Amino acid sequence: MKDKFYNYICQLQDEICESFTSIDGKACFQEDLWSRAEGGGGRTRIIENGAVFEKGGVNISAVHGPLAPAMQAYFKIGEVDFFACGLSLVMHPKNPMAPTVHANWRYFEMYDKSGAPIDAWFGGGLDLTPYYLFEEDAEHFHRICKASCDQHDPSFYPKYKVQCDAYFYNQHRQEARGIGGLFFDYLKADQERNLEQWYDFVTDNANHFLEAYVPIVTRRKDMTYTDKEREWQEIRRGRYVEFNLVHDKGTLFGLKTNGRIESILMSLPPKVQWQYDHQPEENSAEAALIEVLTSPRDWCKTNS
Amino acid sequence: MKDKFYNYICQLQDEICESFTSIDGKACFQEDLWSRAEGGGGRTRIIENGAVFEKGGVNISAVHGPLAPAMQAYFKIGEVDFFACGLSLVMHPKNPMAPTVHANWRYFEMYDKSGAPIDAWFGGGLDLTPYYLFEEDAEHFHRICKASCDQHDPSFYPKYKVQCDAYFYNQHRQEARGIGGLFFDYLKADQERNLEQWYDFVTDNANHFLEAYVPIVTRRKDMTYTDKEREWQEIRRGRYVEFNLVHDKGTLFGLKTNGRIESILMSLPPKVQWQYDHQPEENSAEAALIEVLTSPRDWCKTNS
Repeated sequence: MKDKFYNYICQLQDEICESFTSIDGKACFQEDLWSRAEGGGGRTRIIENGAVFEKGGVNISAVHGPLAPAMQAYFKIGEVDFFACGLSLVMHPKNPMAPTVHANWRYFEMYDKSGAPIDAWFGGGLDLTPYYLFEEDAEHFHRICKASCDQHDPSFYPKYKVQCDAYFYNQHRQEARGIGGLFFDYLKADQERNLEQWYDFVTDNANHFLEAYVPIVTRRKDMTYTDKEREWQEIRRGRYVEFNLVHDKGTLFGLKTNGRIESILMSLPPKVQWQYDHQPEENSAEAALIEVLTSPRDWCKTNS
Repeated sequence: MKDKFYNYICQLQDEICESFTSIDGKACFQEDLWSRAEGGGGRTRIIENGAVFEKGGVNISAVHGPLAPAMQAYFKIGEVDFFACGLSLVMHPKNPMAPTVHANWRYFEMYDKSGAPIDAWFGGGLDLTPYYLFEEDAEHFHRICKASCDQHDPSFYPKYKVQCDAYFYNQHRQEARGIGGLFFDYLKADQERNLEQWYDFVTDNANHFLEAYVPIVTRRKDMTYTDKEREWQEIRRGRYVEFNLVHDKGTLFGLKTNGRIESILMSLPPKVQWQYDHQPEENSAEAALIEVLTSPRDWCKTNS
């Protein structure tokens, strides 16, 4: 399963990077190969200063070795070995009308000190962070999320949608990071599904990613915008930074377990502002975004 | 002691704000009074878009009530009541040649549920974060820090200087946030010093703050700079954000204990950049800064 999933994310990285390069039309992804002293490494691909994408990364990694103490504490387990591989992507478009997108699909194994497997699971999902709300974009994104779930189990979409809203939440601001999508974790073999079936679900979800995001960025990338709208995007990107640095478990574990810093922090937006106590005007487009982040909506209600 | 120290920080806030307003010459501090449901409140004073200060805050607060569970865990104590008051300031100058400064002086009391005092201590310090290194600035700042310590105890400066370097450290980057200053905490009555003597030390330290920073910002605020130098400042401000959101205990406790978000996050710089794997050119002024952040120096060696 390790090799099968790793091979899958390798080709997925190629496919996604090709698609984004073609959309951008100006910048290319730069590749950095890196290795980790404790075992494994990764292939980081970054795009910067593009015509469409101001900054973004589509990274894969496969790492293994003894589980770091911080992770032992988190998983409430003793000294074990682990293997983890996955693809993580974050794309920050330049145009404030085009949303930031994040996705991650990962596979994790644990072994006891004799090398015997103890546990194995998949995790991941995808989510959208608009700066201006276009309901048709949110509906489209969620419709594809739902479609990728429904063929596996009709209970998946409602469950993983709610988990996404709960996870990508800036508790200290009492608002969601974006309009959500899917978030799943600890997908383990059980009476209902073996690991192969979870592989089918997770890769099927990843295969829907471009269909979920590309039409949105394509129709927003050339819209006109004002300096004020760009400023709003930069202020909202500040909330993205706050989530990733204060709340995101993946980022924090990476920073605390000697991960490759530049690959982890590629998720941070290129230009960001913090203004004191910035409040959107009443009944503005900016206020409409805050409204939907404060009360997550059921985006598939009319389309299900 | 509560009232005495609170009265002190009230007048200190006035004095510091007056000095900064006069240096800026364009913008004024805006004041926000706030109260906290659980008890107490604060007086937040923010300056933005000034001629010298792009963003900054000089805030006081005095809060009390039951100690929040996150703080109970941190202090390894059960359900107690607390009182805390202090002044916190962060000033981000516009000119990349002028350093950001941070300072905090605080007093904390704890009581059992009958209201009997259990513990009381002072904490605080000041530290400087340059974007370009001027050795005379670092030496001046540390000389004043040392002077404010030496009249109380010659052991204070070396001890609190090292604690400052250790505290304001971006572990994940393996570099200091800035060139340090002083950091002290848990200054409690003991055989050597009673709480009055700690009050004298802490307020004396705070009384030296303007002498430590004002000459520096005054000689840097009108220096010419290039777009590239401004860009470097914005990238380095990203490290400031990383420290405050990932490592700073004050910020994290504030966010986790229902503090006033906008007063806590006033510390974040106004305009910030993250570029992938940005590296300064060899032998550049930018590289000289990184060098000193990687290996903290003894700034008082030649002046002591």
